[in-house]
Amino acid sequence: MTRHDTPDPDELFSEERSAEVVAASFAGTLDPRLRLILTSLVRHLHDFVKDVELTEREWAAAIELLTATGKMCTDTRQEFILLSDVLGVSMLVETLNNRADGALTESTVEGPFHMVASPPRELGADIAEDGKGTPCLVTGSVTGPDGRPVPGATIDVWQANDDGFYDVQQPGVQPPLNLRGLFTADGDGRFWFRSIVPRHYPIPQDGPVGRLLTATSRHPNRPAHIHFEVSAPGHRTVTTHLFVAGTPFIDSDAVFGVKPSLVREFPTVDDPERAARVGLPNPFRTVNFDVVLRPDATDREA
Amino acid sequence: MTRHDTPDPDELFSEERSAEVVAASFAGTLDPRLRLILTSLVRHLHDFVKDVELTEREWAAAIELLTATGKMCTDTRQEFILLSDVLGVSMLVETLNNRADGALTESTVEGPFHMVASPPRELGADIAEDGKGTPCLVTGSVTGPDGRPVPGATIDVWQANDDGFYDVQQPGVQPPLNLRGLFTADGDGRFWFRSIVPRHYPIPQDGPVGRLLTATSRHPNRPAHIHFEVSAPGHRTVTTHLFVAGTPFIDSDAVFGVKPSLVREFPTVDDPERAARVGLPNPFRTVNFDVVLRPDATDREA
Repeated sequence: MTRHDTPDPDELFSEERSAEVVAASFAGTLDPRLRLILTSLVRHLHDFVKDVELTEREWAAAIELLTATGKMCTDTRQEFILLSDVLGVSMLVETLNNRADGALTESTVEGPFHMVASPPRELGADIAEDGKGTPCLVTGSVTGPDGRPVPGATIDVWQANDDGFYDVQQPGVQPPLNLRGLFTADGDGRFWFRSIVPRHYPIPQDGPVGRLLTATSRHPNRPAHIHFEVSAPGHRTVTTHLFVAGTPFIDSDAVFGVKPSLVREFPTVDDPERAARVGLPNPFRTVNFDVVLRPDATDREA
Repeated sequence: MTRHDTPDPDELFSEERSAEVVAASFAGTLDPRLRLILTSLVRHLHDFVKDVELTEREWAAAIELLTATGKMCTDTRQEFILLSDVLGVSMLVETLNNRADGALTESTVEGPFHMVASPPRELGADIAEDGKGTPCLVTGSVTGPDGRPVPGATIDVWQANDDGFYDVQQPGVQPPLNLRGLFTADGDGRFWFRSIVPRHYPIPQDGPVGRLLTATSRHPNRPAHIHFEVSAPGHRTVTTHLFVAGTPFIDSDAVFGVKPSLVREFPTVDDPERAARVGLPNPFRTVNFDVVLRPDATDREA
């Protein structure tokens, strides 16, 4: 026998040393950050399996769930983001990377529906192209924490329609790029556009994530919101939502995205002259959402 | 404003309370085991994200890796099992659920290639149908820990061919069901069949798992082995390997499957009469693998 014929049991995988042995296999990773991440991942993953003493059938069920989640993904459907969302992982990553600072607009999850580029539109344009829902004027400003306007800031918005679906979920039913818009703030950092008052809606339930929610008696609903991604040169991009005050599920968002600072009233305005000017029937609903960006030499897209 | 207009920040998601809030969302899960597993999963997953302060780009890379892993799966390719294997999770689950007892045959990972049913074959049959490799006679017995034979035990075997591929990896190149066999032990619990001496081989590297190994400077190789799954009524099924003594990579199996008790010599026998009887050219290689099953009223398939 050569010395390799019988491997040293002390260097082999065992229940006690499992994470240590697997982490050691990543010791040659050249990128130190990747090595750190994998070492931590292995430790926590093995701790989880040991804590619950995962059975072989449960492991097989997990493999099936993950496989089905991958299979569900298409160009317009991202089931893994949805899984990350309902496990609070997306919100945790967003929160860790955008820690609150009283003056700044807080971030929240991007969600899985920002997969198509919003069409550039003129200020004042109507992003609701399907004629459904309650018309609404959205106004706001983009400033730095000192209150100085950020002229020319980019405001990317998207939302579900009045039936609770994003355009990409209903190809052939909704007009393409319905309820999406890419706006450029004016010289005073102001923006305005027409849309509809958003409604609460369920996240997609026809895939593995829906089955997980059903199996755990969790409701699939998100409180009413409009997505915003606001960016400007020299500033850190903020990905966030504007939530409707009083919307159902504000206390139990399926993806944990609600922050109190992001909730706004949508009052009704009775002003025939202004209605005519903005192109809405009188009276009309309004909301104002002022966004405060963090000055940052290296923005997120850099 | 109704009381719902401004949600209570203390009940909402925050960096500090993230796992607690998400775990609470699973409180209504009717199956207590599922509730326990998800609560533990969320806690460990959030701990991992916090420990490494995962960035949004790293999160996005993880989503991409998981999505690509799911997309890689087919009827004959299970990339998520492969991912579980290289992270040592498969081996950990196998180990936890089959804790060693000196007298019993130890288990190891099933691997991703047991996805087609092995064809029933007569004792003595040759499972190597592609004419490649070094012929070998495999013999053994199936007994209980008291040494009493288990007549009629089922021995399911599968292995890679001399080029390092399983049949399902090379449709149209290898004969279907090449190097697979389902044998029934004789009245004395004995089995024997012809095959080839296995060789070490790399796990598939053309998918996300291969990219992970490359990025971490890990080699993809598994030491030479034959897969065994041995079952019998009233006994606990054992899923294991027979490893070749002296094979390369016995100390660094890419999937952490090696246990010293599963390593066997494959000596050469020079016995023309026996060679003629078993249908092999003389001299020929042999290996003996005696399997000891745990008596168990409820076997794994029950």
